[in-house]
Amino acid sequence: MSETFDFDHWSAHNLARVEQALDRWVGAGDLNPVDHAAAGELLAAMRYAVLDGGKRLRPLLVIAAQEAVSKGAIHTVSEAALRAACAVELIHAYSLVHDDMPCMDNDVMRRGKPTVHVRFGEAGALLAGDALQALAFEILTPAESLVNGITQAKLCGLLARAAGSAGMAGGQAIDLASVGIPLTEAQLREMHQRKTGALLQCSVIMGATCAGATGQSMAALKDYGAAIGLAFQVVDDILDVTADSATLGKTAGKDAVNDKPTYVSLLGLQASQDYARRLLDQSLAALQKSALADTQALEALARMVIGRAY
Amino acid sequence: MSETFDFDHWSAHNLARVEQALDRWVGAGDLNPVDHAAAGELLAAMRYAVLDGGKRLRPLLVIAAQEAVSKGAIHTVSEAALRAACAVELIHAYSLVHDDMPCMDNDVMRRGKPTVHVRFGEAGALLAGDALQALAFEILTPAESLVNGITQAKLCGLLARAAGSAGMAGGQAIDLASVGIPLTEAQLREMHQRKTGALLQCSVIMGATCAGATGQSMAALKDYGAAIGLAFQVVDDILDVTADSATLGKTAGKDAVNDKPTYVSLLGLQASQDYARRLLDQSLAALQKSALADTQALEALARMVIGRAY
Repeated sequence: MSETFDFDHWSAHNLARVEQALDRWVGAGDLNPVDHAAAGELLAAMRYAVLDGGKRLRPLLVIAAQEAVSKGAIHTVSEAALRAACAVELIHAYSLVHDDMPCMDNDVMRRGKPTVHVRFGEAGALLAGDALQALAFEILTPAESLVNGITQAKLCGLLARAAGSAGMAGGQAIDLASVGIPLTEAQLREMHQRKTGALLQCSVIMGATCAGATGQSMAALKDYGAAIGLAFQVVDDILDVTADSATLGKTAGKDAVNDKPTYVSLLGLQASQDYARRLLDQSLAALQKSALADTQALEALARMVIGRAY
Repeated sequence: MSETFDFDHWSAHNLARVEQALDRWVGAGDLNPVDHAAAGELLAAMRYAVLDGGKRLRPLLVIAAQEAVSKGAIHTVSEAALRAACAVELIHAYSLVHDDMPCMDNDVMRRGKPTVHVRFGEAGALLAGDALQALAFEILTPAESLVNGITQAKLCGLLARAAGSAGMAGGQAIDLASVGIPLTEAQLREMHQRKTGALLQCSVIMGATCAGATGQSMAALKDYGAAIGLAFQVVDDILDVTADSATLGKTAGKDAVNDKPTYVSLLGLQASQDYARRLLDQSLAALQKSALADTQALEALARMVIGRAY
């Protein structure tokens, strides 16, 4: 691996591109002609949910995977990958909006500000989430001159499956039904693989798809995505007991209050931290197996997921 | 036009195909591997929302448009059209699930049975709706051997735009914000074009896209779709005051109770009925302009929309 890779620089550059693209695509005139005050309010709720905040881990995974496979110079993110990056972030953002609603987790604080339903009402939050999910697929399907149709179709298919009942929505359903119920480790893993892991892994696969990955590289990147997807949730469970609300930007300690099964409640804190580190090793081993040269950004993102303080 | 076209036969045949396909695709093992009771409950809520009930107007529009453009023999609905038909119905179904929730219309009865949130809880309804929207895009993106990728991408793009903030979700937002507020006819039309019209028109365009329609035919079918889309809502407003709950299969008279602006409240009953008939004429004139020969099913569907008793 190159000694000269500067993750902070890479990350800042690509975060700026993603923020700029989200700002353009969420609530844009082209995609969303508006001539009703209420429609403007819907767009405002969508923008509130997406812009200003968020680590953009999923978009960065898309871009890093695309770059690793395409072996291009750094800073050459394709139109397809930029769209995939934003689309997956919109799915993530919509899930947070709906997840925070009173009938779900009933959370009033997110990224250090009032949640969407607190600010825009429950109906406004419901509709903003619904519209964000649709917008993800709008962004993935521009004119064919921008992204070829076959790639568009593949990206839509990957994202839909990661978001749906076999992925994120299914994981949420398991999560909700598991309050106060002891789960086995296998059941807990299954829940997290769907709820959080599917979309994180999908980010990697979408990026690789934009660059035309196949065979061994794609298989290894899937393994990488699976490992960091699970690690992310293990770390999330750890942070829920070790961090405070101000650091997290959301209410800490909620899992215990809500009697939700977590890795910490199942394995204990130390074993959970050990498990997170093992998953980091797995993800790095998968990158080695990928036989791709430019995996520095993916490696740095894996370390960031495991080592994140919030 | 052929003298021998039998709409009842056509309709029954295609309804059976659509019901069979929905039954296969909603909650199917292939698309949704399940090994958690809670995930099974989510699938049950999705099936409850979609199966057993519904006029399937949108799927029939997709199929009728595909057949009109492809000029094939009746009963030759393509894989692409069958998938488009089911996908648009899933978007419609999810919108009803969310629309019925307490924070929206708070309706407890739909198609003569308890609404999804009454049966499965609010969180269950929220997630089932979310998962149904994702499933629509899953169904549109099968292996390329079944539907070519470029068609898949076009269908995803059309459906996402009809469902999103510029379409259905935007119309819902306007609708919610319009309670107790007098709208002009232009504003009311805009609201309905988005809330209901966009998805109905999209059904026609998706069907035409499956058959490769372009130019004059596509333009005329868009006009047809716009006319019946608006007519549908005008008739809905009429039925809300003229029909009873048992006939409608949902609570009648809700618009007036909720002080919602409707065509009847704006124009009066007689003028609304006249308007519905003018829209029928417009839709039939558009079919003439399409220069397509086999438009009998589309014509019959237009008459059904305007003349429907429930």
